[in-house]
Amino acid sequence: MELNRRALLKGSAGMLGAARLVSAQPQDPLQSWNEGPVKQQIVDFVRATTDPSSAKFVPPAERIATFDQDGTLWVEHPIYSQVVYCFDRLPSVVKAKPHLASVEPFKTVMSGNREAIGKLSMDDLMKILAATTTGMSVEDFDAEVKKWLVTARDPRWKKPFTSLTYAPMIELSKYMRDSGYKTYIVTGGGQDFVRMYADQVYGIPPEQVVGTAGGTTYGYDQNGQPFLTKDPKLLLNDNNAGKPEGIHLMIGRRPYAAFGNSTGDRQMLEYTMAGGGERLAMLALHDDAQREYAYGPAQGLPDTKVGTFTQALYDEATSKGWIVISIKNDWKSIFAGGLLLGGG
Amino acid sequence: MELNRRALLKGSAGMLGAARLVSAQPQDPLQSWNEGPVKQQIVDFVRATTDPSSAKFVPPAERIATFDQDGTLWVEHPIYSQVVYCFDRLPSVVKAKPHLASVEPFKTVMSGNREAIGKLSMDDLMKILAATTTGMSVEDFDAEVKKWLVTARDPRWKKPFTSLTYAPMIELSKYMRDSGYKTYIVTGGGQDFVRMYADQVYGIPPEQVVGTAGGTTYGYDQNGQPFLTKDPKLLLNDNNAGKPEGIHLMIGRRPYAAFGNSTGDRQMLEYTMAGGGERLAMLALHDDAQREYAYGPAQGLPDTKVGTFTQALYDEATSKGWIVISIKNDWKSIFAGGLLLGGG
Repeated sequence: MELNRRALLKGSAGMLGAARLVSAQPQDPLQSWNEGPVKQQIVDFVRATTDPSSAKFVPPAERIATFDQDGTLWVEHPIYSQVVYCFDRLPSVVKAKPHLASVEPFKTVMSGNREAIGKLSMDDLMKILAATTTGMSVEDFDAEVKKWLVTARDPRWKKPFTSLTYAPMIELSKYMRDSGYKTYIVTGGGQDFVRMYADQVYGIPPEQVVGTAGGTTYGYDQNGQPFLTKDPKLLLNDNNAGKPEGIHLMIGRRPYAAFGNSTGDRQMLEYTMAGGGERLAMLALHDDAQREYAYGPAQGLPDTKVGTFTQALYDEATSKGWIVISIKNDWKSIFAGGLLLGGG
Repeated sequence: MELNRRALLKGSAGMLGAARLVSAQPQDPLQSWNEGPVKQQIVDFVRATTDPSSAKFVPPAERIATFDQDGTLWVEHPIYSQVVYCFDRLPSVVKAKPHLASVEPFKTVMSGNREAIGKLSMDDLMKILAATTTGMSVEDFDAEVKKWLVTARDPRWKKPFTSLTYAPMIELSKYMRDSGYKTYIVTGGGQDFVRMYADQVYGIPPEQVVGTAGGTTYGYDQNGQPFLTKDPKLLLNDNNAGKPEGIHLMIGRRPYAAFGNSTGDRQMLEYTMAGGGERLAMLALHDDAQREYAYGPAQGLPDTKVGTFTQALYDEATSKGWIVISIKNDWKSIFAGGLLLGGG
């Protein structure tokens, strides 16, 4: 749809005939993918669901594709970027509320003791998330995140996190959009956090980001101007079963294609495939220690608790026809390089 | 944008030159509106925000317009259609759970005593809503609503509720879409309920319906197939302050234009206008007793508690430049007639 429209717009401006437009050959939309069965299955799926003469044709309005973010669209190892953000924010929060310095889990984070920090529980992380991302206006939060995105650096690559996105997945999401699919991010990460860069980095606008979300409260400043304050109240924990629940809440349609990389995406893929007809479910396996990382029990490697890919998930994928992407074998190149935001 | 694209597609197919396309005169997109300052202000707003040479130009991606539903897009008087739905559903719920027959507020509704039913509180209505629209799968709920939409009739017009939509507002939402605006329904009604007909009736897809929403729970049937069950847990009460909160949750952008008809829309309009630059806020005043209804304190009429338009809201609108639509004077015709769904 989209490709067609562009061709027509371009053609019309140049007063070219329709015949010439139709014969134009676009370059390979998945050039960062190695040739092979995985790439072929993507192309086959898109062709089957977008060809009006196909029995598997899906009307444009129903073409929904959902992408996990951490580990699927950008690097998640060794620690989720948003956790880094929260840790980076904590000193100024403690400065404003000094009593937190002696309260756990803040005390541990402020100590800088990496071993102790590594042992923090999910409950601890949620407390840190609440302390560093709520109790402020939406505008203040947005400004802080934008500032951080430009200055923060990944410790291994010394680059902004937004430059560590995966070229093959960005191509894939664009390929799906150009084929009439509406692409959504469905992430365990904070919805408001991811919205700050998703459009620039992935071409996915704020209204198509579904994530872990808290409530807001509408109120007024001293000049009577209305604003929204971010609340610590959790509305949606967008992990595991929370992903299909979040998809229903925010989209209201079942996806035709879903992409993930961990057990946190299992239910989203299962829900997608349960829709019947032609559907696509894919999981990226981080098996490339040299170019990126190799981790997770499915490869007999330790569970790093970030993007856990269990053997059970691997077996389920194999038995159900969910496609496992080997980053090592299926991706010709890894990083998109952050073309748009800050890139290093 | 959209008009332009259509013209180009049409022209390209017919091998016409661009000059002829540009000169094509579309018919008045707001033909159900009487000429006058209200109609003019709509046209002026759309032109100013979509003309790239205008200082008030809004980039296409940021063009968000939000529409209340009850009383703004379709008839809400004398009772919200969704309340009728819940009352219609109640007998079969009571049949399945006989103990409810002797419990309030169910007992009152089952009695059929109109006077007593008219006195039910909002809390009572929420209990009836929970009993009749939760505890079932999303698919079962959808099927029940679809069945009801075809058979239920408005008591005054003896027509399906979906045929009692307002032609001028449907034209307006289409005009905004054709001008590159993404149109959303932001309703106090149930999100899942409105999603069942919004696309067919208004041309607004499920993912662009923001409404009062409950949670769902992901689980499995006896064959191991996953499904979502609708929970009584309220996630978003999309009325009053809940409207800007819901807009932030579901859209993540501030609207440039917002349309409502009652105090329940006040904060949505306020939030919209607080964004700065060129914005549009409009309120429909139901002042046409002959062709539709006249009700509400702003006209010195009794408060029917459905779509309350207070004098304070009227005064605020006047003082702040929010535009009040007089249905009697500004609308040439009222009903769209349900072109697409069942229409009688």
